[in-house]
Amino acid sequence: MNYISIQNIDNLSQWVQDALKIKANPLKNKKLGKHKTLGMLFFNPSLRTRLSTQKAALNLGMNVMVMNFTNEGWTLEFEDGAIMSQGASEHIKEAAEVVSQYCDIIAIRAFAGLVEKEKDNAEIVLSGFLKHATVPIVNMEGCTGHPLQSLADAITMEEFKTPHRPKVVLTWAPHPKALPQAVANSFVEMMQLQDADFVITHPEGYELNPEITKDSKIEHDQDKAFENADFIYAKNWSNYIEYGQITNADTNWTITAEKMALTNNAKFMHCLPVRRNVIVADEVIDSENSIVIQQANNRTYAAQLVLEKILKKVYK
Amino acid sequence: MNYISIQNIDNLSQWVQDALKIKANPLKNKKLGKHKTLGMLFFNPSLRTRLSTQKAALNLGMNVMVMNFTNEGWTLEFEDGAIMSQGASEHIKEAAEVVSQYCDIIAIRAFAGLVEKEKDNAEIVLSGFLKHATVPIVNMEGCTGHPLQSLADAITMEEFKTPHRPKVVLTWAPHPKALPQAVANSFVEMMQLQDADFVITHPEGYELNPEITKDSKIEHDQDKAFENADFIYAKNWSNYIEYGQITNADTNWTITAEKMALTNNAKFMHCLPVRRNVIVADEVIDSENSIVIQQANNRTYAAQLVLEKILKKVYK
Amino acid sequence: MNYISIQNIDNLSQWVQDALKIKANPLKNKKLGKHKTLGMLFFNPSLRTRLSTQKAALNLGMNVMVMNFTNEGWTLEFEDGAIMSQGASEHIKEAAEVVSQYCDIIAIRAFAGLVEKEKDNAEIVLSGFLKHATVPIVNMEGCTGHPLQSLADAITMEEFKTPHRPKVVLTWAPHPKALPQAVANSFVEMMQLQDADFVITHPEGYELNPEITKDSKIEHDQDKAFENADFIYAKNWSNYIEYGQITNADTNWTITAEKMALTNNAKFMHCLPVRRNVIVADEVIDSENSIVIQQANNRTYAAQLVLEKILKKVYK
Repeated sequence: MNYISIQNIDNLSQWVQDALKIKANPLKNKKLGKHKTLGMLFFNPSLRTRLSTQKAALNLGMNVMVMNFTNEGWTLEFEDGAIMSQGASEHIKEAAEVVSQYCDIIAIRAFAGLVEKEKDNAEIVLSGFLKHATVPIVNMEGCTGHPLQSLADAITMEEFKTPHRPKVVLTWAPHPKALPQAVANSFVEMMQLQDADFVITHPEGYELNPEITKDSKIEHDQDKAFENADFIYAKNWSNYIEYGQITNADTNWTITAEKMALTNNAKFMHCLPVRRNVIVADEVIDSENSIVIQQANNRTYAAQLVLEKILKKVYK
Repeated sequence: MNYISIQNIDNLSQWVQDALKIKANPLKNKKLGKHKTLGMLFFNPSLRTRLSTQKAALNLGMNVMVMNFTNEGWTLEFEDGAIMSQGASEHIKEAAEVVSQYCDIIAIRAFAGLVEKEKDNAEIVLSGFLKHATVPIVNMEGCTGHPLQSLADAITMEEFKTPHRPKVVLTWAPHPKALPQAVANSFVEMMQLQDADFVITHPEGYELNPEITKDSKIEHDQDKAFENADFIYAKNWSNYIEYGQITNADTNWTITAEKMALTNNAKFMHCLPVRRNVIVADEVIDSENSIVIQQANNRTYAAQLVLEKILKKVYK
Repeated sequence: MNYISIQNIDNLSQWVQDALKIKANPLKNKKLGKHKTLGMLFFNPSLRTRLSTQKAALNLGMNVMVMNFTNEGWTLEFEDGAIMSQGASEHIKEAAEVVSQYCDIIAIRAFAGLVEKEKDNAEIVLSGFLKHATVPIVNMEGCTGHPLQSLADAITMEEFKTPHRPKVVLTWAPHPKALPQAVANSFVEMMQLQDADFVITHPEGYELNPEITKDSKIEHDQDKAFENADFIYAKNWSNYIEYGQITNADTNWTITAEKMALTNNAKFMHCLPVRRNVIVADEVIDSENSIVIQQANNRTYAAQLVLEKILKKVYK
C-alpha cells in the first residue's frame, strides 16, 4: 500500500471520520509503530510536512530518520541505462532498494522543477522510488500532487461543514515566484470525491491539467465564482500551458475582505506558507473565518491516518 | 512560562541547587516528558546548544524534532502588514501558530545580525514566536541574551565556589570576527543576581548596553580588574556603540598566564567555542584552573532544569 | 574500545558469526542501549552509513543525535598551538571533550581531502577525536579506511560463501571524480584476515599504500585476475602515488558481462554509491550475481555489532 495520490483513498468520507477519531485520541495507537521506522527523504524545503509527519509517526511510536537529500546524500540519477559519468553519483535503483532495507515506510518530498512538463508529469523521483523500493511510499508533495495536504483539507472542511451542500471555490491568486500545481491538483481531485458545488476560478490561460480537472466547473470571473461560496481555497500556481511561467500577476485576484463579502460568509483556506497581502489580505487571513491554522493542525492527523493504515495493512 | 532571559529566573540560587540535583540523577524524571515534543528551531549554527538541549529533552523522555530554518524551511517575514512580494515566503504569525500545534515547547536560536541595533534589540525572531506561538518558548541564544549559557555558568560557579564572597571578572578579549553581545549580556544579568564582587573589564568604547550593565562596576584597566579575582570569564563582543564594528583587536587583552597570575588563582571560564591563542592562551585554557569543559557539561542540566520547570508548570 | 580500523577486530570470523546472529534477531538486545546516546557527526555526505548506523542504534534502544558539522556547527581547528585568528572557530580539543559529555559513543565521517597525502594519512579528524574524546569513537569512513563497510562485506561474503577456498578479486574501475582509497584499504585489510586467494587488480601506477597492501597479490592484467574468481569487488580510487590525481580513466576496466564471464560465476560486490555503466555495466549489477543490495543491508548489522560490543564492554 502506497499513498501517492488522492486516488489511493478508497472511501474519503470514511477516511475523514477515521482521521477525526485519531485527532480525538492521537495516542490511542501509540504502540502500533513500535520498532518500525519511517524514513523521511527531502529534496525540497518543508516546515508543516516535515514536522507534522514526524509528529504523526511519533504518536504511533515509530522511529523516524529524516534526511535532506540535497545536501546530506548523493545526487541521484533516474534514467534507466544512463552512463553515469556526469553529476549524479547514485542511481535511484540502488538508492530505493537500499533505503527500503533500513525503513519500513519511506516518505518523499520532491517538487516539480517547472522546466520540463513531461519530466514533472512523470514524477521521476516518486516513480523511481515506487518502482524500486520494496516498502510503502508516502508522497510528502510530488511534482503533480500533495495528497497529505488535501486529506488534511478534507478533514478541516468536515469540521467546518455547512448544514447544506456547500459551495467550494478553489481560486488562483497572484504570487511573485513560479509555484507548482501540486496542491491545486490534489485539492481538485479530493473535491471530485465530495458532494459539493465545486468551482475552480483562475485567469484565462491558467487552466490546470485537464486530465485532472476533468469536468470540474471552471469560472474565469472570480467575483461570480465567489457568490454564495461556503469555502474559499486560495492557491497560486504557475501557468500549466506556458509551462512554469508567470503570465499573470494581477493583484485584482488577491483575496480581500471585499471579495469575501461576496460569499456566504465563507471560510478562508490556504495550505501555507502564504504570502500575506499578495495571495490574501491581512484582513482576511486574520479574520475569524480564516481556518488556515486548523488546516495545518490537521496535517498531523492526515499523516497519522495514512501511516496507521499502512502499518495495519502491511505490517500486521 | 517561557525562558527568554535571566529575568525569567525567580530564584537563582534555588534554580542552581535544583540543577545540581538533576545533575546528580539526570534520569530521575525520565518519564516526565513522555509524549511531549520539543521543537528545536535553528537560524544559526550550534554545537553545544544543539546537543545539550537535545540530550536534556531525551533525559526527560521527550521527543525531539530539530529543524534548521536556514536551509530546511521557508524564509520568514516578521513585519506586521508587510506586502510579501519579496524574499520571504511565510509570515512569523503562521509559522509560530503552526509549529505550536506540533510541539509542546519550542526552542529557538536566532543570533544578532549586528547591522541594525534597533532590530537586534527588538529580538524580532524570539519576539515573533513569543507573540504568536501558543506554547512555551525557550531561548537558545537570541540577539541580546543567552540565558541557558548563563544558567550553566551559575551552576558551574556554584560547583567551584570559594569559601569567601568571590570576585568575578567578565573580561573582553580580542576576536577576528564581529560577535554578538548576547553571552556577555546574560552573564552580567546573572551576576547581578549573585552575591559577589563583580567587575566588567573592556577597552574604553566597548561598553555593553547600559540598560543591561546598570550599575555593575566597569574597570578599563584589565590588570587592575584581575587583581584578586576568583573567576575570570572571558568573552569577546563587538562594539555596541559603533554597533557591530570591530574597533579594537588589541592582543594585550588576550588572557595569558601572566594575566592569570594577577588573580587569586582564579578559575578560567568561557562559553565556547573559543579561539585559542586569540581569546586565551593555550597555557591558560589547558591549565587545571580552566573549567570551560565543566561549563559545557552543565549546559545539559541548565536546559533540563528549564524543560522540567516548563513541563511541570504548563503540562501537569 | 574504539572501532577505527579493521585492526580493531580481534577475531573476524567470530565477529561475522555474531553479526549474523544479530541479523537473525535484530531486536534481541533492544534494551541494551537504553538511555545511551550515539552522536553521529558528519563532515561529508552519507546515505547508507547515515541511515544504517542510525537504524542499528535504534535496534539497540539507543538515542541518536545526528549533526552535520559542515553547516550546522563550527569550523574546527586541528593543529596544536594554532593561533586561531583565521577561519576556524573551535579547536578539536574542546569540541571532542564537550561532545563526549553529551554522547556515550561518537561516530564520525571525515573523508580524505585528497590534496595533502600526509594530512590525509594522519586522519586529523578521527585522530583528534580519538585523542581528546573521553568516550568510544566509531569510524563511519575516515581518510584511509571504512571498516564498517568492510565488516559488512565480510558478513555478506560469509552468506554467499563457496564450498571451496574462494578466489576474491578487488578490482579498480574508472570514475569521473577523484575518490579516496578508504574503502579499498579496509577491504584489503579485511581480506588479509580471511582464508582466501585474494588478488588486487588495477592499472600500473594505481598501487594502494604499500603499508596496507603488504604482500597481498597484485595483478595488473584484469582479465587474468578475474579467471576463476568467486567474488569480484569493484571500486574506484584515485592515484595514491600521484596523490589524489586521476591518471587513468580507461573504460576497458569497467566491469562488463564479458569480464564476469571470465570468472567462476562470481558474485559482484560494490560498496555503493556506484556509477552505472562507468564502474559496472547495468547487465552485471542487475544480474542475479550482484549482491550489492545485500552488502548495503548488512551495513546495519555491522554497525549494530560494533555498537553492541562497545555497549557491553564499556557501559556494563
